[in-house]
Formats: sequence, C-alpha cells, structure tokens
Amino acid sequence: MSSPARTLRLQPEDNVVVTIDVAQPGDATSSGVVAAARVPKGHKMATAAIAPGAPVLKFGQIIGFATKAIAPGDWVHEHNLAMGEDFDRDYRFGEGVRPDTLLPEAERATFQGFRRADGRAGTRNYLAILTSVNCSASVARFIAKEVERSGILADYPTIDGVIPLVHGTGCGMADKGEGFEALKRTQWGYATNPNIAGVLLVGLGCEVFQIGRMKSEYGLVEGERFRTMTIQDEGGTRRTVEAGVARLREMMPSAASARREAIPASELVLALQCGGSDGYSGITANPALGAAADLLVDNGGTAILSETPEIYGAEHLLTRRAVDRAVGEKLVDTIHWWEAYTRRNGGEMNNNPSPGNKAGGLTTILEKSLGAAAKGGTRNLAAVYRYAERVADHGFVFMDTPGYDPVSATGQVAGGANVLCFTTGRGSAYGCKPTPSIKLATNSDMARHMTDDMDIDCGDVLDGVSIADKGRQIFDRILAVASGEQSKSEALGYGDAEFVPWQIGATM
Amino acid sequence: MSSPARTLRLQPEDNVVVTIDVAQPGDATSSGVVAAARVPKGHKMATAAIAPGAPVLKFGQIIGFATKAIAPGDWVHEHNLAMGEDFDRDYRFGEGVRPDTLLPEAERATFQGFRRADGRAGTRNYLAILTSVNCSASVARFIAKEVERSGILADYPTIDGVIPLVHGTGCGMADKGEGFEALKRTQWGYATNPNIAGVLLVGLGCEVFQIGRMKSEYGLVEGERFRTMTIQDEGGTRRTVEAGVARLREMMPSAASARREAIPASELVLALQCGGSDGYSGITANPALGAAADLLVDNGGTAILSETPEIYGAEHLLTRRAVDRAVGEKLVDTIHWWEAYTRRNGGEMNNNPSPGNKAGGLTTILEKSLGAAAKGGTRNLAAVYRYAERVADHGFVFMDTPGYDPVSATGQVAGGANVLCFTTGRGSAYGCKPTPSIKLATNSDMARHMTDDMDIDCGDVLDGVSIADKGRQIFDRILAVASGEQSKSEALGYGDAEFVPWQIGATM
Ligand SMILES: [Ca+2]
Ligand SMILES: [Ca+2]
Ligand SMILES: [Ca+2]
Ligand SMILES: [Ca+2]
Ligand SMILES: [Ca+2]
Repeated sequence: MSSPARTLRLQPEDNVVVTIDVAQPGDATSSGVVAAARVPKGHKMATAAIAPGAPVLKFGQIIGFATKAIAPGDWVHEHNLAMGEDFDRDYRFGEGVRPDTLLPEAERATFQGFRRADGRAGTRNYLAILTSVNCSASVARFIAKEVERSGILADYPTIDGVIPLVHGTGCGMADKGEGFEALKRTQWGYATNPNIAGVLLVGLGCEVFQIGRMKSEYGLVEGERFRTMTIQDEGGTRRTVEAGVARLREMMPSAASARREAIPASELVLALQCGGSDGYSGITANPALGAAADLLVDNGGTAILSETPEIYGAEHLLTRRAVDRAVGEKLVDTIHWWEAYTRRNGGEMNNNPSPGNKAGGLTTILEKSLGAAAKGGTRNLAAVYRYAERVADHGFVFMDTPGYDPVSATGQVAGGANVLCFTTGRGSAYGCKPTPSIKLATNSDMARHMTDDMDIDCGDVLDGVSIADKGRQIFDRILAVASGEQSKSEALGYGDAEFVPWQIGATM
Repeated sequence: MSSPARTLRLQPEDNVVVTIDVAQPGDATSSGVVAAARVPKGHKMATAAIAPGAPVLKFGQIIGFATKAIAPGDWVHEHNLAMGEDFDRDYRFGEGVRPDTLLPEAERATFQGFRRADGRAGTRNYLAILTSVNCSASVARFIAKEVERSGILADYPTIDGVIPLVHGTGCGMADKGEGFEALKRTQWGYATNPNIAGVLLVGLGCEVFQIGRMKSEYGLVEGERFRTMTIQDEGGTRRTVEAGVARLREMMPSAASARREAIPASELVLALQCGGSDGYSGITANPALGAAADLLVDNGGTAILSETPEIYGAEHLLTRRAVDRAVGEKLVDTIHWWEAYTRRNGGEMNNNPSPGNKAGGLTTILEKSLGAAAKGGTRNLAAVYRYAERVADHGFVFMDTPGYDPVSATGQVAGGANVLCFTTGRGSAYGCKPTPSIKLATNSDMARHMTDDMDIDCGDVLDGVSIADKGRQIFDRILAVASGEQSKSEALGYGDAEFVPWQIGATM
C-alpha cells in the first residue's frame, strides 16, 4: 500500500486542505480524509461537509462560498466555490476582531538592541548620509568612500558603517502635493530611523526639495545626531566632501558610545515583504511568516503589512479585523486612491487570478490576495498608515505602498521598521540598510539554488513541518538578527542601492 | 567723465541690448546709444526705433511686439512690449528656415575618437554593467567592485573603466505603454552608446523588464560586445558576481584594442543641458553654448536641445526653424503631450515669467523660454525625437525630456550623445558616465566659488568677451574633451549615480 497523498492544513479552522501530491478518488490523504474526486496538486480538498452558501475557509479566512453542497474529500474549485454576491463591497468593519492575545510581560521575548534617545530601539548602529536630490548623490558617495579610505572607522568598531542613501528624485517635481509629502516623510523617516545613530543630509542648494524647509517643518535641530550642508554653500565638490567627512568624524564618538542591551521584543517593528512570488508563496513562506508576525504581535511588537496592489480584493477581510471603523475606513480610502491612481495613469487595479493561477489551484481573488496577506498573520488590524509615515501603534498594522519591493521596503523603513522579513519563490536578491533583511524561500529547490542569499528554507512546510513551528523558527531568527547576527544579504553587502523613494506624480 | 554703462548685444540683428549696469537717462552706454530712460540692470534698452506692432528682437528672435512707439535708448519692458495676440498659436512651420551654413569638408574640425563597428564615434572607452531592474543593482556594483579590487584593468590602460549603471525602476510597472517603451529605449541606447565598448546586462530574472524580450525586440545577439545574465539563473549573488567578472574579463581584450584616431567633428553628438539657472543664464552661458552648438552644426555635427518644460512657450519659434512641417508638428505634439501629462498629474505647464523674473528683466514667456533655448543656437531644427530615442540626424535637433537634469541627460546619452555641455548659474555638481560633461558657469562669482567643478567661466561675457569668441572657446574645449582631456566632473569621479531613466506612469 502506498503512503497517503500529502496535504497541508494552513489553519486549524479551515474546512479545506491544500494538496501537495495529486489525490485520486479513493486515495487516503495525510489529512485523514479520503479523496472523493481527483484533486490536482496545489488545489483544495474539502475536509468537512460544506452546505450550499456556507463559507469556505482557507488561511483561517473566508475565500468564498459553496455554490452547491460539498462533501469531505471533494475537490473545491470554480465548479463549487465562488465569491459571495456583493461580498466584495461589504466591509463589516471590526466584525472579525478577536480578543487580545498579548503574552504576560514576564513571558515576553527580548533582544539585544540599542536604546535611542527618543525611546525607540535600534537593531543596527549606522551613520547615514542622506541626499535631498540626485544632484548630491555622487558627493554623498564620495564622502562615504573617503571615510572608508581614511580607515577612521577602525577606531569605532561599534559603528556598523557609513551608508550613503542616494536616489533619483528631489527636483523636477512639484513642491507640494502627495509626491512631495511622500518624499518628505521618507527623508525624515530615514533620518530618525532607530537603526541610524547619526545623519548627515547633503543637498545641492537650488533643488525643489529644500533642506531648510524640511528642517523647519519637522522642527529638526542641527547637533551631534543631525547635520546638513549643501554643495553650493560649501563651494563645490571637494570642499563639501572635506566638510562632510569632518561632520561625520564629529558624530562618531557619540554614535560609537551606543551599546546593546536587553530590550523587549515589543520594540521590534517588523517590515513584511514578498517579491518574486510563486505558487508556494501562499502556502509555505507567507503563512509561516504570518505565524511569526502573530508571535511578534503577541509579544507586544509591531508587524507592518504593505504592498496595497497585492492585497487588492482582500481588503474587506482586513477591514473585518480593523480595531475600529476609522482604521477600516482608512484602508478603504487607500484602495480607492489606488483605483484613481492607476486609472489616471491609464491602467487599472486587477488582482484576479489569472488562468495560470487557476490551473495552479487559486479560485477567487480573495484566495489570491490572502496568499499575499497571509504574511501579516491573523491578529487585529491596529492602524493604517500612509507611505513612509511614522508607525506609532503596536500590533499588526498596514502601510500603503506599491508592491515593488525596494519602493515598498523604503516606505516601511521610513516608517521605523528595524527588522525586515522577505519571502520569495523565484529568488530575490534584495537587501537593505539600515534595516537587516531576512530572506525566506518558499520552496527548497530555490533555497538550494540560491543558498548564498536565502536565510531560511520554508519549503520544508511541504514535508510536514507545521506552520506554527516554522513561524517559531522565523521569530527566533528575527530576534537573533535584531540582536546583531548578520543576515545573508547583510553579509553580502547589500543595501547601498535599494533606497528607492516612491515617486508619485510627473517628473518635470 | 565716467565710463559708459555696460550693455550686452546677444545677436547682431537684435534691436535691444541687455544692460549690465544700471543706465540713467542721458548716460552713454557701451552700445553707442544714449539711455533715454532709467534702465535697470539686466533689463532691455532699445538700440533702434521700433514702430508700434513691430517685433522686438533678442537672441536674434522675436520676443514680442511693441505696444507703442519705442525710441533708441528707451527702456523696453511690460509698458511697451507684449506677446502678439494669437502669436502663441501660430506655428508658421519652416518660415524661419535659413540657408545651409555647413563648412566645406576641408575646413571642418576633427577630434581624436574611437571608431566603432557601427560607424559611430566614441569619445570614451568604457565597459558598462547595465541593470534591468533595481533588484540587480547591488550585484552590478559588486561586480564592478570586484573588477576594481582584482586590479585586472591595470593590464588594459585603454579601457576607461567599468561602470555599473544602476537605477530604481524595471519592475512594479506596466509591461507596455510609454513608461515601458521609454525604459526600453534608454537601456538599448546605453547598451549601444559609442562611448561604451562592451556591455554586461544583469537582471534578477522575474522582473517586468525582461532581458529576453529586449534582446528579441532589438535583435541583440550575445557576443564579445554584449552579454546578459540573471541572478536567478546563475544561482544567487556570489555566482552571478563571479560569472559577471568572468564575462567582463572576456570582453576586455577586444575593448582594449580600440585606439583613438582623427575623426571629423561631424561625428560629435552634443547634449545641451542647463540646471540651476540664474538671471545670467540667458545672456552669458546659454547664448555662448548656442554659438558653440552653431559651430558644431556648421561642422556637420549634432546638437541636442531638450528639457521640454523649459522651452514651453517658445515652441512656435522652434517650429519656424523646423526643416519641414512634419518636424514642426512633432514638436507641437510633444507640447500637447506634456499638457496632458501634467494635467493628469494634477499640475499644469507654466513657464510664464514670475514676478522675480520680471524684476530681473524678463518680460514675456517667449523671452524666458528663449533664454533656455538659446543654448541650442540658431540653426534649422532638423528633427524631433522622443525621450531616449536614437538620434540619427545631423544638425540641430530636439529631444523631448523633462527639465530635471539627470533624467534629461540620461535620455540624451541613450540617444547617442558622446559629449555634453551643462550651463549653470547657481552651481550644479552634475557629471556623467559614459559621456563626459563640461560645465559652464553663467557668472564669475559662482565660477570662483565652485572652481573645482566649473570647466569654463562664461561670466566674462559681461566684461566684454563676445558671445562668438566664448562660443569658439567652448567649441575648442568640446573637441579637446572629446579627444580625451578630462572634464572637471570626470576628474572628480562623477557619473556612477546619475543614470536616472524617466519613470512615466504608476509605480505598482
Ligand atoms: Ca509581493
Ligand atoms: Ca513586493
Ligand atoms: Ca491607533
Ligand atoms: Ca534648465
Ligand atoms: Ca535642467
């Protein structure tokens, strides 16, 4: 007798499992249920009777409703499952809010981090050179190169490095409106990210993004932690590089005095990312990362889900988890903004399963978007933020960003993320400074193929490792990396080219 | 007796001069005309009688029409000068076309350049690492760093360097439409720019901007001059870096075999740029650069004017110079495209003189835009190109780009520019690879203040150096830099952070 066909249950309350092997009628399966029909690999098999009109649950969430009676062992797909009529316009704000799952303080995890003056905690200790505009990008890099060449940092081993964060925008743009505001929040967010001990902000002088205006709007004061300069004031490239190196030298003793200490995991702000998804993303790495996010939230920490275009169609499941109506409505407003944004740019929002998705086992838009949202876990939605806005709430939160990895992560880091987890199926080479990025492979083949880049192989979920155990493993790695252990992308030196602020609006 | 008030005549046919000193009624001026009114510094004084309704000429072009009789010595400004009614909708295609001014072949200048296989000429001899997407940016930089660390290039002194050209886009974008097409032209344009001897194009693998698609659309064939790879195919960061270094090593012997030889100046393709303009831009550096552009065109070469938002309002003067109606209409279409582009992004096209501009002496939108367009000189408009489109015509041409310097220059270099001149009043620190950039200061104060960055001080035009002589000096420097002399920005090491393709459309 052959071994039962493997299946995967994503959450205990689900009434379907995902098949890892093809199941033929009469086949025993690892779910304990005997297949009543042929169920292709990666598709859904019912493990309970589902009455017509009753919800089908996957990821612990409604992915649609039975269009006819479904028996245990049945294949569940387009022939017997559909979105409920008008379900997609029914936000049911807060209906799905669950009781608090916070651990008692005594049971909460800690990590070794840097306590900053504003009370937040860093997991790294960088000096950063920010740039107001592309016109000062080369000078920022020359300053960093000169610091490296000089060998000054050898005297300050507790400083992780001097990072030039250069970009392509800052001029040729409107000096007000959402594009300008997004850039301003991004710059300020990086300047104050707790992984950065001190900031030198370098401009050209005549750009649209005026440093003086940013300083006055945020009440920024020059000092040991924050200095600014412009190439036009200093008198050209060489003098600016010299003066910039001098300013950084002045910052080093104070930056170097930071020491790691035990800090509650509640001070961790975890950015959730995925890029280069595949058919396994929604059933291995994303749910496993979601379990880790739940653990972090239960420890009082913060997990930021983003990538609005990828959760499109599942927003009414997030609104059910919203702690109050205002939070839910802010998410809905965000969705409407995206519909207008894509429309005025000649496109449309569309996250419907493609024919390829359907062949792979995805039936509804809910199911597809939930695969992406699964990395956010299952806790209540505490807040919704604009791109690059400072994340102040603890718990599970959403930040509006594009799906494009570097732009999305830049917004999250600006929001204060001090650690980042990134799931990938095709194999992303993403890395970040100042925020360490942990890469999670959705399948073992890719994890082996790109072994230098992948921190954790989540493909073993298909071999029987539970989502809960995998989540615990990821959570432990988050604590270790937050405490100073290098992630793979950090060891490779990533992070100098991945600062990409979202450009909204016309380039003039 | 005091010396006469200084004035500046921009073109011989002008009926106004610009005052360098304030002129009081009765003051002698260096134009030979006695001031009949107080004329503020930087403003216009008539040097001939102008009848009501007759054109006022500055830059050798119509900047408006007299609204009352103007006598020699009169101050010319809003009280007696305005745009003609409907003048701004009257394109008069080709009416201003002038006879050919091409020099006899025997009298034409030459430079020492690299003759490429496709017949075009390079002024530099780089190897480039292009990136299809931000996700391969770090790997591109790691490859360049490893080449540098290895010291291989010491064996190939005729190679100017290995440049990683990284950017923020390539995914999270529509896979068709004007944004995608602009990026495709940009990548292909860099890959084939004659200043580049060989190209390694590195991708991630799953990005929207697919390398395979670009290869098939342009018929690109892998060989000694062009190689591609993806991180996902190679198996991660380390293997891609190793393989990338190996591919570049294979390209080096052939790249290094290039030798400079005498090449007609007709093979020069000059990108015209300005950034950080001031009140002197339109009367010193821009007209001087225009004179150099005219010299280049008379030598059979090509000069590319760009920055559509900055010539807005003067397009009907360029259409008069268009060699045929189709060329003129293409420019008008471009203007209309920009009106729609800014409108759908919540802005509007507006290049009207501001109150500050008016106080400084600019009366009409024509005059303001002509100050920017003056760097294009006075020759016939031979062609109009889309952003990053291959420039195939010789003569004076226009390429549609934003005004923002790095984005504009990226389009011009993609178009094939092998040398670049950049005027600046406030003081730009721009530099470019693979195309050397020559920086022209509009005023001597800034030229002294930023002496490490400025190649030529055009402020001496105010002290009596003629526009024609200044143009000759710039033209000679263009030939010298094209022949291998380093520009200031090259010596400083600029050009690794200024590759900024125009992002059109939504970031998803
Ligand atoms: Ca994703
Ligand atoms: Ca993504
Ligand atoms: Ca709140
Ligand atoms: Ca300009
Ligand atoms: Ca410009």
